[in-house]
Amino acid sequence: MAPTDPHDVTPTVIDSRERRAWAYLAAVAEPPAASIARLVDAVGVRDAARAVRSRRFPDGHQAVARSTASRHHLVDPDQDLLVVDRLGGRLITADDEDWPAWALHGLSTAETSARGGPPLALWTRGPGSIEGATERAVALVGSRAATGYGTRMTAVLTNGLVDRGRCVISGGAYGIDGAAHRAALAAGGDTMAVMACGLDIDYPTDHGLLFDEIARVGTIVTEYPPGMTASRHRFLARNRLVAALSKAVVVVEAGHRSGAKNTAAWARRLGVPLGAVPGPATSAMSVGCHALISDGDAVLVGDVAGLERLVAPDGSDALSSTPAERGETDPFEARVAAALGTRGGVTLAEIARACDADTGRVRSTLARMEVHGRALSDGATWGPPPR
Amino acid sequence: MAPTDPHDVTPTVIDSRERRAWAYLAAVAEPPAASIARLVDAVGVRDAARAVRSRRFPDGHQAVARSTASRHHLVDPDQDLLVVDRLGGRLITADDEDWPAWALHGLSTAETSARGGPPLALWTRGPGSIEGATERAVALVGSRAATGYGTRMTAVLTNGLVDRGRCVISGGAYGIDGAAHRAALAAGGDTMAVMACGLDIDYPTDHGLLFDEIARVGTIVTEYPPGMTASRHRFLARNRLVAALSKAVVVVEAGHRSGAKNTAAWARRLGVPLGAVPGPATSAMSVGCHALISDGDAVLVGDVAGLERLVAPDGSDALSSTPAERGETDPFEARVAAALGTRGGVTLAEIARACDADTGRVRSTLARMEVHGRALSDGATWGPPPR
Repeated sequence: MAPTDPHDVTPTVIDSRERRAWAYLAAVAEPPAASIARLVDAVGVRDAARAVRSRRFPDGHQAVARSTASRHHLVDPDQDLLVVDRLGGRLITADDEDWPAWALHGLSTAETSARGGPPLALWTRGPGSIEGATERAVALVGSRAATGYGTRMTAVLTNGLVDRGRCVISGGAYGIDGAAHRAALAAGGDTMAVMACGLDIDYPTDHGLLFDEIARVGTIVTEYPPGMTASRHRFLARNRLVAALSKAVVVVEAGHRSGAKNTAAWARRLGVPLGAVPGPATSAMSVGCHALISDGDAVLVGDVAGLERLVAPDGSDALSSTPAERGETDPFEARVAAALGTRGGVTLAEIARACDADTGRVRSTLARMEVHGRALSDGATWGPPPR
Repeated sequence: MAPTDPHDVTPTVIDSRERRAWAYLAAVAEPPAASIARLVDAVGVRDAARAVRSRRFPDGHQAVARSTASRHHLVDPDQDLLVVDRLGGRLITADDEDWPAWALHGLSTAETSARGGPPLALWTRGPGSIEGATERAVALVGSRAATGYGTRMTAVLTNGLVDRGRCVISGGAYGIDGAAHRAALAAGGDTMAVMACGLDIDYPTDHGLLFDEIARVGTIVTEYPPGMTASRHRFLARNRLVAALSKAVVVVEAGHRSGAKNTAAWARRLGVPLGAVPGPATSAMSVGCHALISDGDAVLVGDVAGLERLVAPDGSDALSSTPAERGETDPFEARVAAALGTRGGVTLAEIARACDADTGRVRSTLARMEVHGRALSDGATWGPPPR
C-alpha cells in the first residue's frame, strides 16, 4: 500500500506526512496562494509546511510570511483531512495521478497567474476522476435569477451534453447552475460542482441534498479547506476554476451585472471557447448573453449541435454523437415516437406506459428528440413535430 | 408649367412624350431590365421607346429585342399612367428630382448589376419624397409567420425608429412586414412599402386597407407596372430594392428558409449594415436570425439603441434622439409617468383619462417609455419600472 495514494487511504488511517503537509499548506493562506506554490517548488512540500509553521522562511520567500500570518497557528490538517474523509472526500494535489494538470496549466501564464494562479490543492467528493471529467467537461453557467426559459435551455443543452457523454460543470448556485446539475443527474449523466467554500459547507444551504446527490455520482470540487465559508472574492476565484476545468463555457442567461460574465472573462483569458445562449431581446436575463455575443466575446449557441461545434470546430474532440446523428435509429426512440402518435396531446405517463419504460428514461429521450426537432411539447403534453 | 414634372400633371392630362416613353419602357420587359437601361443611356428615352416599338435596334443592343419580345405590342403606357394616376400615384425616373439616385447607386456595381441592377423607373403612391425617405430609412423585415414575440419586437423597434424620425421600410407582407408598417402608422411615423407587383394590385389582398393607409401618409413603391402580379422571382427582385433604399436592414424573425434571408444577402452585397434580432433559441422563427449572427453576417440588435449604433456607429447619421436622450424631459411623458403612480396596475384608458389625451398618443408614449425602461407592462396594465 502506497500511503501517498489517496485511493488507498481507509477512513480511519492517519494520512501520510506529505498529505498532512499539503493539507496544512492548502489551508494556511487564502487560495490561490502563489507564494506558497513557489515555496513548495523550491523546497518541497514537507519543508515548505515546516517553514510556515516555524515562521522561518528561506530567502526570497518572505511573501509567504504575509499570506500565512493570520492562520499559521490555527490550521489543523489532521482535523481537515478527517472532516473531508467523513464526507467521503479526499485531498488531491499535483502529486496525485488524478490531478488535472493539463486543464490547470492555463492558470500558470503570466497574465492568469497575476489574477490567481493554479490551485495548490483540490478537496473533492465523489467517485469519479477529476482529470477524466475535465477531459470531457462543458460548463453551463448563468444567472441565479434564471427565468423559465433559461432553466429550460439549460435542461435542453444538458440533455444533449449527457447524450454525448460529457460532464456538465457548474457552480452549484441557484438558477442556471442548479438547473444544470439537476438536469445532468436526471438524465443519468456526469456533473461537477465547483464550490466557493469548504466541502463541509452547503452553499446555498437549500442545495445540501443536491450536493449529496452530485457527490454520489459526480464530483464536488473546491480549493477551500473545510470550514471556509463562501464570499464574494471566493466566487470570483471559483469562477476561474470553472473555466479552467472546462473544454468550453456557455453562459445560458446573464443579467447586466451577472457573475456569469466573470466566468466568461476567465474563459476568454484562458482561451477556453466561450458561448452564450440568445434569448428574447425583451428579457433582462438575456442582456448579458447578448452583450457577450455583440461584443464578439462569445459565440451564439442555440442548441447542443452549436455547442459541440464550439468545443470541437472540426469534430476532433466530439466524444460521441447520438444514434440519429450517426444515421442510426435508436430503437427506444422509435418506440417513443410511435407512442406520440400523429396528433400528439400525449402525457409523459401515457408514453411511459405505452413504451413499458420508466418516466425518467422517457423524459430524457423526449428531451433529446425535442432538441433535434423530432418531438414537440406544449408544456403539458407531447406530440410529433409539426408537419 | 413644365410638362415633364410629374407633380404638375393633373389627373386627366395626357402625359408628356418623355413620360410615356419611360412608362412604355418600364413595362415592356420584366424588371430589372439592364439591356433597356443601356439603350436609354445610348440613345435617350424617346428613341429607346421608338426602337423597341418598331423592333429596330441600334447595333450592340440586340439583347433588348429578346427582353421585350413578348410584351412590346401589348404595353399601353397611357393606360398604365392613367391607372396609377387614378390611384394618386406617379411614375418617377432618373429624370425626376425625387429619384433616389444615391441609394440606388449600389445596384450599379459589377456584382450587383449582374444579379439585378437599378430599376429603370419606380411607380409610387403617397405624399412623401422617396429620396427624402431613403435618407432616413431603416428596413425591418422578417417571416410572414411571425410569432407574438416577433410582432412585439417589431413594434418596439418601430416605435424607437419613429421616435428618431426615421422611415420604416418593409415589404408589405404578412407577419413582420405588416407589423412594421402598422406600428409606424400607429405611432404617427413615416413608412414605405416596397411591393413585388403593380400599384393597382393588393398583395396580400387582406392588406388593401393597410396599403391605402400607407399611401395616405407614407409611400408605396414598386418597379412593376400596373397589372403585374406578385411572383416568387419578383419577391426576390423586390428584396434588393428594400435593401438598397435602406440605411440599415434588420431581420426581426426568420425561419430556416425565410425570404428575409434573401433581403439580408442583398444588404450584405450592397454594404448596407445588417442586423438581426435574437430570440428564444427554442423558436423556429429565430433560427434564421441566430444563423445570421453566428455566421458573422449580421450584428445582434436587441433594442433601438443597438439599431442606431448599426446605422451610425459614430453617431454621425443619427437623426434625432429622444427628449430623454438629449437630457430633456418630454412634458407629456412626465404626465404619463405621473399617471403610472408608484404601484402600477393602471390601464391605458385610465392613463389617457388622467392625462386628458387620446389613447393613441398615450400608447405611443408608453411604448417609447417601455423601450427605454421607464414604464413596464404586464400585458394588461401599466406601471413604473421595478425599483
